Amino acid sequence: MPFPDDFLTTMEPRLQQAYADMAALEKGIIANPDENRMVGHYWLRNAVLAPTPELSAAITNVLTAIKAFAAKIHKGEITAPGGGKFKNVLVIGIGGSALGPQFVSHALSRLGGERDRTAISFFDNTDPDGMDYVLAQLSTKLKKTLVIVISKSGSTIETRNGMLEAAATFKSAGLDYPKHFVAITGDGSKLDQTAQAEGWLARFPMWDWVGGRTSELCVVGLLPAALQGIKVDKMLAGAAAMDEVTRKTATKDNPAALMALMWYWATDGRGAKDMVIFPYKDRLLLFSRYLQQLVMESLGKELDLKGNIVNQGISVYGNKGSTDQHAHVQQLREGVNNFFVTFIEVLRDRSGSKTRFEVESGATTGDYLQAFFLGTRDALTEKDRHSLTITITEISAKNIGLLIALYERTVGLYASLIGINAHHQPGVEAGKKAASGVIALKQKITAALAAKPGTSFTVPTLAEKIGQPDRAEHVLKILEHLAVNTPDRVTKTVRKPWFDSIYTVGARWHRMCLLASLR
Amino acid sequence: MPFPDDFLTTMEPRLQQAYADMAALEKGIIANPDENRMVGHYWLRNAVLAPTPELSAAITNVLTAIKAFAAKIHKGEITAPGGGKFKNVLVIGIGGSALGPQFVSHALSRLGGERDRTAISFFDNTDPDGMDYVLAQLSTKLKKTLVIVISKSGSTIETRNGMLEAAATFKSAGLDYPKHFVAITGDGSKLDQTAQAEGWLARFPMWDWVGGRTSELCVVGLLPAALQGIKVDKMLAGAAAMDEVTRKTATKDNPAALMALMWYWATDGRGAKDMVIFPYKDRLLLFSRYLQQLVMESLGKELDLKGNIVNQGISVYGNKGSTDQHAHVQQLREGVNNFFVTFIEVLRDRSGSKTRFEVESGATTGDYLQAFFLGTRDALTEKDRHSLTITITEISAKNIGLLIALYERTVGLYASLIGINAHHQPGVEAGKKAASGVIALKQKITAALAAKPGTSFTVPTLAEKIGQPDRAEHVLKILEHLAVNTPDRVTKTVRKPWFDSIYTVGARWHRMCLLASLR
Repeated sequence: MPFPDDFLTTMEPRLQQAYADMAALEKGIIANPDENRMVGHYWLRNAVLAPTPELSAAITNVLTAIKAFAAKIHKGEITAPGGGKFKNVLVIGIGGSALGPQFVSHALSRLGGERDRTAISFFDNTDPDGMDYVLAQLSTKLKKTLVIVISKSGSTIETRNGMLEAAATFKSAGLDYPKHFVAITGDGSKLDQTAQAEGWLARFPMWDWVGGRTSELCVVGLLPAALQGIKVDKMLAGAAAMDEVTRKTATKDNPAALMALMWYWATDGRGAKDMVIFPYKDRLLLFSRYLQQLVMESLGKELDLKGNIVNQGISVYGNKGSTDQHAHVQQLREGVNNFFVTFIEVLRDRSGSKTRFEVESGATTGDYLQAFFLGTRDALTEKDRHSLTITITEISAKNIGLLIALYERTVGLYASLIGINAHHQPGVEAGKKAASGVIALKQKITAALAAKPGTSFTVPTLAEKIGQPDRAEHVLKILEHLAVNTPDRVTKTVRKPWFDSIYTVGARWHRMCLLASLR
Repeated sequence: MPFPDDFLTTMEPRLQQAYADMAALEKGIIANPDENRMVGHYWLRNAVLAPTPELSAAITNVLTAIKAFAAKIHKGEITAPGGGKFKNVLVIGIGGSALGPQFVSHALSRLGGERDRTAISFFDNTDPDGMDYVLAQLSTKLKKTLVIVISKSGSTIETRNGMLEAAATFKSAGLDYPKHFVAITGDGSKLDQTAQAEGWLARFPMWDWVGGRTSELCVVGLLPAALQGIKVDKMLAGAAAMDEVTRKTATKDNPAALMALMWYWATDGRGAKDMVIFPYKDRLLLFSRYLQQLVMESLGKELDLKGNIVNQGISVYGNKGSTDQHAHVQQLREGVNNFFVTFIEVLRDRSGSKTRFEVESGATTGDYLQAFFLGTRDALTEKDRHSLTITITEISAKNIGLLIALYERTVGLYASLIGINAHHQPGVEAGKKAASGVIALKQKITAALAAKPGTSFTVPTLAEKIGQPDRAEHVLKILEHLAVNTPDRVTKTVRKPWFDSIYTVGARWHRMCLLASLR
C-alpha cells in the first residue's frame, strides 16, 4: 500500500475522533440513533465492560446456559424424544443468523466433520428445493436432529418459512417437533411466543444491542459452535484479546486502525475500489461471504450522519487462494484496476501425520501454498495493484474470534472516519415491503382467477381486471410461476408476442375454492 | 436497463462484426493467436461443426467413451481392486478443472446427493489441511473411491500436489492407487506419461482448442457429471440449442447479443461497473464463482487486439437470493452505485410431495422466493440501480447446459465488441513464475540453515548471507513458515522490533541433512 508519507499524520485527528467514538459506543451511548439502540457486541467477550451490572450478568448467564445446554446434549442428558443422543443440528436463519455460523462451522470443523460432536446443516433461504435438498440429507437422521431457529426480530419471513417447512417434515415423520426445536430470538417476539406456546425444547435470548451482522459471538454463533464441539471460550478470548489491542489510541500499535486507514487510502474514503479477500486456506473460503455482510451492510449508506447524500460503501468479494489465481488473477493483474486485495496467510499447514510429506525434495504442498501467495502478491505489486496482508499462525477457535473482532473494529473505525452510522440498515426495508406487495398481488390474482373457472386471460387483460394495469410485468411473472408450479390451476397457451399468451383457469381449482368458501 | 433509444442502432455495426468474428472462430480459425490455437468449445455440443471430419469423430468417440466408462462403473463392470462398485469420486483439479464440475455437481445433485450414482468431492487447491479435510470424509470409503486427476497441460502444480497427496493416502491404506486413478489431460503430457507408466485405470484426452474456462462441456465436466448420474446428453443438448439461437445475426432474437450489449452499456464498455450475479435458487449458488472465471479471465486484459493498453474486464461477484438481500442489498440500494445486477429466476419451486405446502393461506415458500426477487429488483430500480433478469423454467441438465452456453457466447461477443482476445491468459504466468522463485529461495534458505547447526540468524543477516538482501520480506515469510511447521528444524526467539527476532537451526536437522548427504 504505497500511501504517501504524510497520510498517517493527516488522518491522525480523525482517527483520534474515531477512537473517542468507539470508546463512547463501548460505554453504552445510543450509537445507533435511528433505531434508538446501544451497540454492544464488544461486551459479549468481556462482560464487565457492559454499561450496567444487570447486562453484565445477563451476558455471563447466557454464556453459561449455552455451554450447559451443549454439555447436556453431548452427554445425552437432553435427548431426542426417542431417547437417543442428538447427533445433528439444523440451523434455520438468514443473513447474520447464518453467515457467521456457516463460516465458523466450516472453518473449525474437525477432520472434515468426522470428529465434530454434532453435524451442522443450514436453511439460509426460502427456496423450497434448497430445503428439500438439506432435508433429504437428514431424512434418515431426523429422529436425532436438533433444530435451532434464529431470528432476532422473530418475524424474518425466510426463517419463519424454514421453520414451518421443517416442522411439517418432522410431523409427517411422526415426530413431536417441539421436542427437537430451539429458539434464539428477542424476548417476547413472535418466534418467542410460538416457542413458548408450543413448548419448545429451549429458548435463548437475543438483545437489541447486538446487530445481526455482529452476532457471531453472541448466542447466534456460540450455540451452534458449542454443539459442534468448538471451544467457544477460546473464540471469545481471541475476540477479547483483539478488542484490547484495537482499543489502543497509538495508531501504529492498533491493527484495526491501520487497516481502516488502508481502506480509506485505497478507496479514497468513498468506495472507489473493491475489496478482494484472498485467504490462502480452504477453511477460510466462507470468510469473504461473511465479510460481505459485515462490511457492505455496515458501510453501504446513502446518508452520512449529518444527512448529506454520500452513497458510501466498499464492495467485497473473493474466495480463496491459490484457487482464485486460476479464476480471476488474470483480470486483477492486467484488467481494470478497481480493487485492492487483502491476503490472509495462515502459517500452519496441517496437523496430523503428514506434516513432513514432500511433493518434491524439500517442498511440501504447504510450501507451494505459501509460494503461490507470495508469487501472486509480487505479480500484482509489479503491476501497481495494491494489497495488504494479514498473517495468522493457524486456524483455531482463538484466531477465528480474533479475525472477527479485527474486522468488526475496523468497520467501526472506518465508519467514524467517513462519518456514517454503521449500525442500521434502512435500505433493506424497501425490498421487504415490495415483496409483501408482490404476495398481496398474487393473492389478488388467484382470487380473480378462482372466481372465473374456464376463463382465459392475457397478461394485459388480467392486469386491467384487477385494477393494476401498470403492474403488468409482475402479473406476468406471477402467472408464469403459477403455470409452472400448479398446472392444474393455471395452464398457459403460448402466443407471440408474449403478451398475447393466454392463461386459462382450471375448473377443478374453482371447485376447490368454492368448497373452501362454503365451509 | 434504461439504455437510450439509439443504443442498439449505434452498436449494430460492431455487433455484425462480432457475429462474423464468432462465425470465423466456429469455422476453426486461429482465434487465439498468442497461443496459436483454434477455439472450439462450440464443436463439443455439435460435433459436425468441427472443421475436420477427424475432429468430429474424435469428439464423438470421446463422448461415447465417457458414457461407456460411466455405465461400466455404475453396473460394476469396472470395479475397485477389492471387487466392489466404485461409490465415490474424488476430482483433483483447479480453476477450469474444478469450478465447472463443482457448479454442475451441486446444481444437479439429486435429493441432496442421496440419490446420486456416485458422491463427488474435490481437491481444488494445494492446501494440505484442505486435502486432509476431504480425505477424512473419505477415510472409510477409500476402497470404493475413484480419483479423477484433471490438468490440460498435465503440469499444473496444485493438481500434481493433490495427486501425490491422494496417491500417498491410498498407498498408506494398502491400496493399489493406479487401479483407482483416471487421468484427463493433453495427449503426451507429463500427467499422461505418469498415468501410462503407472497403468492407471483410464485416460481421457483434452484438446488444446478447449480453454480451461470453457471446458465444462468437454470430458472435464462430462466425466464427473456422468459418474454422478447426470444426463450429459441433455446438458450438451441444452448448450447446442442455446448455441443455435445465439448464432442468430438478428440482434433482437439473440439473447447473448442482447446481454453483451447490456454489459457494454452498463459498464461503458470498459468495466466501469461490477457484475453482481443474483440467482434466486440455492442450486445456483456456485454459478457466480464459475462465472468469475469465465468472465474475468476472458475479459480482464491489459492489451486489446491492436496492442493498445486498455486494462479491460468486468468484476463479477454474488451468491444467491434472497440470502444476499440480508448481506449486501443495503449497500446495493443505498451505497456506491458501482454495479449492475443480473437476476436469475427459476420458475419451478420444487418437485416431490410438498409442492402445495403453504406457509400461510395462498402462499408457499416458493411464492415468497419469487416475491423477494421481484421486491428487491423494484427496490433497486427505484434507486436507479440497474439490472437484467434471466428466467428459466427449472433447474435441469438441459437448462444448466443452456446457461453455460449463453454466458460463453456472451463473453465471446462482448470480447469482439471491445476488441480483445478472450482466449488467452498472459497475466497468470507471472504469478506462477514468481511462485517457483519463492520455492527456489526456500531451498536456498534451508540449505544455508542446514549447513550451520546451532547457528542463529536474524532475517536481515540470513538474507545477506544467501545473497538476497533485497528479498528480506520473503526470507521472513519463509522462516516464519518453517518455524511454525518444523519447530525441530527452526526455532524462533521473538525480539522487538520484528527484524531483530532470532531463528535458530536445530542440531537434529543438521544431522539428518548430513546423513542424507553421506548416503
